[in-house]
Amino acid sequence: MTVTYQYPRPNLAVDCVVFGLDEADLKILLIQRGLPPFEGKWALPGGFVQMDETLEEAAKRELKEETGIQDLYLEQLYTFGAIGRDPRERVVSVAYYALVNLRDHKLMAATDARDAAWFSTDDLPPLAFDHSEIAGIALKRLKGKVVYEPIGFELLPMKFTLTQLQQMYEKILDRPIDKRNFRKKILGMDLLQELDEVQVDVSHRAARLYKFDEKKYRKLRQRGFVFEI
Amino acid sequence: MTVTYQYPRPNLAVDCVVFGLDEADLKILLIQRGLPPFEGKWALPGGFVQMDETLEEAAKRELKEETGIQDLYLEQLYTFGAIGRDPRERVVSVAYYALVNLRDHKLMAATDARDAAWFSTDDLPPLAFDHSEIAGIALKRLKGKVVYEPIGFELLPMKFTLTQLQQMYEKILDRPIDKRNFRKKILGMDLLQELDEVQVDVSHRAARLYKFDEKKYRKLRQRGFVFEI
Repeated sequence: MTVTYQYPRPNLAVDCVVFGLDEADLKILLIQRGLPPFEGKWALPGGFVQMDETLEEAAKRELKEETGIQDLYLEQLYTFGAIGRDPRERVVSVAYYALVNLRDHKLMAATDARDAAWFSTDDLPPLAFDHSEIAGIALKRLKGKVVYEPIGFELLPMKFTLTQLQQMYEKILDRPIDKRNFRKKILGMDLLQELDEVQVDVSHRAARLYKFDEKKYRKLRQRGFVFEI
Repeated sequence: MTVTYQYPRPNLAVDCVVFGLDEADLKILLIQRGLPPFEGKWALPGGFVQMDETLEEAAKRELKEETGIQDLYLEQLYTFGAIGRDPRERVVSVAYYALVNLRDHKLMAATDARDAAWFSTDDLPPLAFDHSEIAGIALKRLKGKVVYEPIGFELLPMKFTLTQLQQMYEKILDRPIDKRNFRKKILGMDLLQELDEVQVDVSHRAARLYKFDEKKYRKLRQRGFVFEI
């Protein structure tokens, strides 16, 4: 079944930049393409938008199909419309980004993806299409946003230590952070809930665990409070 | 000449939210539609993307065709892809926004637009499609951005008084600003160049004129400086 239009139109795709964090690195989720063009190359998960789904639904469907990842909060990043960005035909891509706790999600490649894996942002392979540019812009957005919105918590487990929290910011911002100032600032905002629990299964002295109080943050923000790291 | 595809695809459009400022108000540029759907209704300038132009080029072309406005800096706002947003067929629209000095641009409606005019953001008519939503999101973005990036200067004439500058922020942020604190803050950033000129043709005592030093701002920003109102 084909479809005929009066004028040519670009094809419309979505691409997803999913950030995850482990002990060592800030990572991005990539898939290995199973089909041409760029067959065998690594790329951002994504694909064409269907007529009966919104852009965000398309992004979630492609992510689930190609990587097995679901239940995540996607935010629109930017729409890429350079004329030659796809060798097949004119394709405009709406890019989304998300932050996930890497351990919560099991990868499982399928459909057009031969493989799915996390790659350190410091060491990305050459990517298909303009996906290196898209990943770069997402990383820049993340760096810019993480200092004035508490989105970084999405990368951490529900319960975390202050050291884990600091390391998260150090990895994203790519610079060392002074421990004393950091703790003063983060505890001073009164957005962390100190738990009656400490780390388990660690060789060093077990540190106190904290939770981010999202409800409180929303209330404060309505009154004009601005998060700041 | 028609074109046949294997699968249906959304049509792709661009829409533009152009902000301008006069003595009384923050305004948005609207066109009156000359064709169905929504014939005779006010709408954002915009139209379909052609195959040989980028998204930004399409936005500039439509703006020029429908309103006569050209030579402005467009920034991508957001891409709107709700399924029923256009009664004709599935249309995804990439929205752009811009800030201009209203007096620099003469309006001239043409092509699909029957008329073009500036409307106060406080008093917009009902708009075609989801354009009220797009305008609302653009206004929210402007309010959020104007406090930490010196984009507001684009709304002013090249040479302006401190009172004009303050009024610009008051109109965008929709709240009174304390004059003494404002002057201290804005002059303290050392981004304004005090000119050897005063206002002409005013009935009150002529005030000193200033210029925004964009070059200096760029240099400072590279060194980590953050503009803040």
